[in-house]
Amino acid sequence: MDNIGVVFLSEVVGTAILVLLGCGVVANVALAKNKGFGGGFLMVAIGWGLGVYAGVIVAYNSGAHLNPAVTLGLVASGATEFGSGVPVTFLSVLVYIAAEMLGAILGAVVVWLAYKQHFDAEPDAGSKLAAFSTGPAIRSYGWNLATEIIGTFVLVFVVIAFGGGRQGEAGGLAALGALPVALLVIVIGTSLGGPTGYAINPARDLGPRIAHFLLPIKGKGGSDWAYSWVPVVGPVIGGLLAGWASVVLLPILS
Amino acid sequence: MDNIGVVFLSEVVGTAILVLLGCGVVANVALAKNKGFGGGFLMVAIGWGLGVYAGVIVAYNSGAHLNPAVTLGLVASGATEFGSGVPVTFLSVLVYIAAEMLGAILGAVVVWLAYKQHFDAEPDAGSKLAAFSTGPAIRSYGWNLATEIIGTFVLVFVVIAFGGGRQGEAGGLAALGALPVALLVIVIGTSLGGPTGYAINPARDLGPRIAHFLLPIKGKGGSDWAYSWVPVVGPVIGGLLAGWASVVLLPILS
Amino acid sequence: MDNIGVVFLSEVVGTAILVLLGCGVVANVALAKNKGFGGGFLMVAIGWGLGVYAGVIVAYNSGAHLNPAVTLGLVASGATEFGSGVPVTFLSVLVYIAAEMLGAILGAVVVWLAYKQHFDAEPDAGSKLAAFSTGPAIRSYGWNLATEIIGTFVLVFVVIAFGGGRQGEAGGLAALGALPVALLVIVIGTSLGGPTGYAINPARDLGPRIAHFLLPIKGKGGSDWAYSWVPVVGPVIGGLLAGWASVVLLPILS
Amino acid sequence: MDNIGVVFLSEVVGTAILVLLGCGVVANVALAKNKGFGGGFLMVAIGWGLGVYAGVIVAYNSGAHLNPAVTLGLVASGATEFGSGVPVTFLSVLVYIAAEMLGAILGAVVVWLAYKQHFDAEPDAGSKLAAFSTGPAIRSYGWNLATEIIGTFVLVFVVIAFGGGRQGEAGGLAALGALPVALLVIVIGTSLGGPTGYAINPARDLGPRIAHFLLPIKGKGGSDWAYSWVPVVGPVIGGLLAGWASVVLLPILS
Repeated sequence: MDNIGVVFLSEVVGTAILVLLGCGVVANVALAKNKGFGGGFLMVAIGWGLGVYAGVIVAYNSGAHLNPAVTLGLVASGATEFGSGVPVTFLSVLVYIAAEMLGAILGAVVVWLAYKQHFDAEPDAGSKLAAFSTGPAIRSYGWNLATEIIGTFVLVFVVIAFGGGRQGEAGGLAALGALPVALLVIVIGTSLGGPTGYAINPARDLGPRIAHFLLPIKGKGGSDWAYSWVPVVGPVIGGLLAGWASVVLLPILS
Repeated sequence: MDNIGVVFLSEVVGTAILVLLGCGVVANVALAKNKGFGGGFLMVAIGWGLGVYAGVIVAYNSGAHLNPAVTLGLVASGATEFGSGVPVTFLSVLVYIAAEMLGAILGAVVVWLAYKQHFDAEPDAGSKLAAFSTGPAIRSYGWNLATEIIGTFVLVFVVIAFGGGRQGEAGGLAALGALPVALLVIVIGTSLGGPTGYAINPARDLGPRIAHFLLPIKGKGGSDWAYSWVPVVGPVIGGLLAGWASVVLLPILS
Repeated sequence: MDNIGVVFLSEVVGTAILVLLGCGVVANVALAKNKGFGGGFLMVAIGWGLGVYAGVIVAYNSGAHLNPAVTLGLVASGATEFGSGVPVTFLSVLVYIAAEMLGAILGAVVVWLAYKQHFDAEPDAGSKLAAFSTGPAIRSYGWNLATEIIGTFVLVFVVIAFGGGRQGEAGGLAALGALPVALLVIVIGTSLGGPTGYAINPARDLGPRIAHFLLPIKGKGGSDWAYSWVPVVGPVIGGLLAGWASVVLLPILS
Repeated sequence: MDNIGVVFLSEVVGTAILVLLGCGVVANVALAKNKGFGGGFLMVAIGWGLGVYAGVIVAYNSGAHLNPAVTLGLVASGATEFGSGVPVTFLSVLVYIAAEMLGAILGAVVVWLAYKQHFDAEPDAGSKLAAFSTGPAIRSYGWNLATEIIGTFVLVFVVIAFGGGRQGEAGGLAALGALPVALLVIVIGTSLGGPTGYAINPARDLGPRIAHFLLPIKGKGGSDWAYSWVPVVGPVIGGLLAGWASVVLLPILS
């Protein structure tokens, strides 16, 4: 398979695993009768962080972006090629983002299958949507946007600082190369996740929202499209700002 | 000792430690008067993950499968030899699975000894069984099976992606080679463990169930044999699917 | 940029990220309507530890002190140069401390922006201050000082034992070099954080307190200046004692 | 300083830090008005595990036993020398154990100082003792002994499997060499700590009990000397059994 095909498949599979495990922990905590019901915010943050860990490991050959904000941040940082030696072009950026979106939709469908009985048993439509997409604790589009920009800035800036997304090399200790990004996602959750549930990834939020819209989920309510642009636009802005900041700061800092 | 004997002993000891520490954390959380009683799902997930960590470290010479779903997944992936250079044959597969089953039974017996007073003090028979084997939050054999298949698929697919089970090399930093599989087991727990308690390992579930059936546990109820096939068949299917998927996908992904 | 300029920028950015993520987790847990509200002390300890992790990674070129107690502890230990080959002089120490203070103020401002709606919605002025600066559980300046001295001593002594602050080298596994200090901060939180909330860093406490004083936070109360010297003086004494102790003990111990 | 002097000092300092951070987390969780009051069993297990981590790092030159059960287990395993090239003799074993006991007493005294106001404010004498020494959830000397034997066996057997206590080499990533033993202590806590609070270390229990007996703690009750032999004898038996088992099993397993 040519390089761009490898990238596509790698990002689809990695993002699907990321969303399966990330949205999965929310389903476990939020949906009725689960063994992890009410398990707490720390459990959610750890589940998301280690979900990213698992996704990064299987997506080594594409550099494991798994997030359009990372892809765009790398572009803004002036990178000339992505993982696997694929050059940065308009087309390759599109392939990354399309694959991330498709993977996120697929992952969300599998969450629904894994928790099917619990989606059926849950009376609250809001809890069902929460297992797919983020929503604000206090709705205020401007401030919600600010929070998503800040969280994504930290993610992308630090990821670029420790060498781009290419952390998940296979084999032995090298698999620990995916741990820094997992730790970073855990702390962004604990520390910046309170107001909006930290999408910090347009695919992670929009993909599952599309799945929520399309799937025949029993007793589901609306997909909250009014809010849907915030966790897309915020992370895109945050990622771009982080990429530009890294051009100025990282040659100095590290 | 010849290689097959080493494999047998290694898998017995490793799986016994895995089950002792894994079922142990459930006993701590579920049985009356324990200091960890009601400690929460995250504690269970961390206990299981690090229990696998400890088991993997001592079972280096057999490749530390400790799980028939991993053994069968490696077979399906087309591996020609397991850890220690043991060739993949019908006999060696049987030895692995037999050792894993025996180790799981032994580990469960030691859990009972370590928590003897608490098994005696616990009034609820269901809580006693929970410290041995998994059970569904909402009983529905088809959906329960699907959840176990999905969880085991993620486990075996990612384990094969980072180089098979052979992670636990002894000495210094190398002992951290067992950490990736531990992190993976933690996140499968947090994220896919809600509906069925994530057996994801036929030996981990059936071995302790046999121990529960045989041991003279005070006030125990039935061993729920009606459900017992789900956490055996589901993980076997999930492991085989992951092995086959790895043949197609891993040469491309990593 | 010359070395001292690099140090300044590196410490500003690193400390800003440390405080953003550290104070951020307290905001999430303490301020009304947050998704992590009431998330518990362990979540706070993990958020602070991994916040330090992220800060250390981006501040590689200055040796990632991010804490005047570490800077002064290294001076007391007899170090002749800091990270980046900057010699230990009165001026370079001042630059480190000024940068740490400025970074801490900036980080606290961003916490306020990220949680703006929740600062507005929170009725209790004490909870607002808690997201900026520490306060004692039982006010008793002498004993509070003792607790801060003990906690900072452990931090600086162990940090010097594993080779100074220079842990966050960029790239692959090397990014895990920042993990030991993160684990250390987590455990100082869980184990010595009960009485005073473990400032263990004068900049982390005084910088956000200044931000709290200056920012137009809705319904804020006083900034508790009466207590403010404790989390400055305590960590300075603890850091100096640790530096001196390391001169005597570390040649013997490690 | 000669080697035996280095060992003595190293074990004193390392064990003091281990007990300070380990007993410290119990004080935080158990004593009135602490910020971590009621923080849960998982927090205790993590605090103890990372407390061992910090202690091991500073005690590199003695091999970081910090536990008579580890010292005796290494003797039983047939080791001919401990860390720093000190030969295994009756005298060197005595020096290790004496240093571990002295360090544990010192660490417990510092816990009392760090939490002085909270020991004074706590009405329950049992909670005060809990911050020093372990006690059984259900008193039954035989079964309590069995639980301590099992927990210590797992600790010492796995520690010997990954290469003895000598994990804490200073500098960069090498400081992560102390992480495996920390993870192991966390999981023994979550999984085998329910019935007795997992002393698994005679010095960790007896040293603080002596400190509790001697210190002028306000409103303290008895030091429960009737139970005190269990967390000494159990870990000694468990460590010896693990050492003997390692002679037979480890050449085969790893």
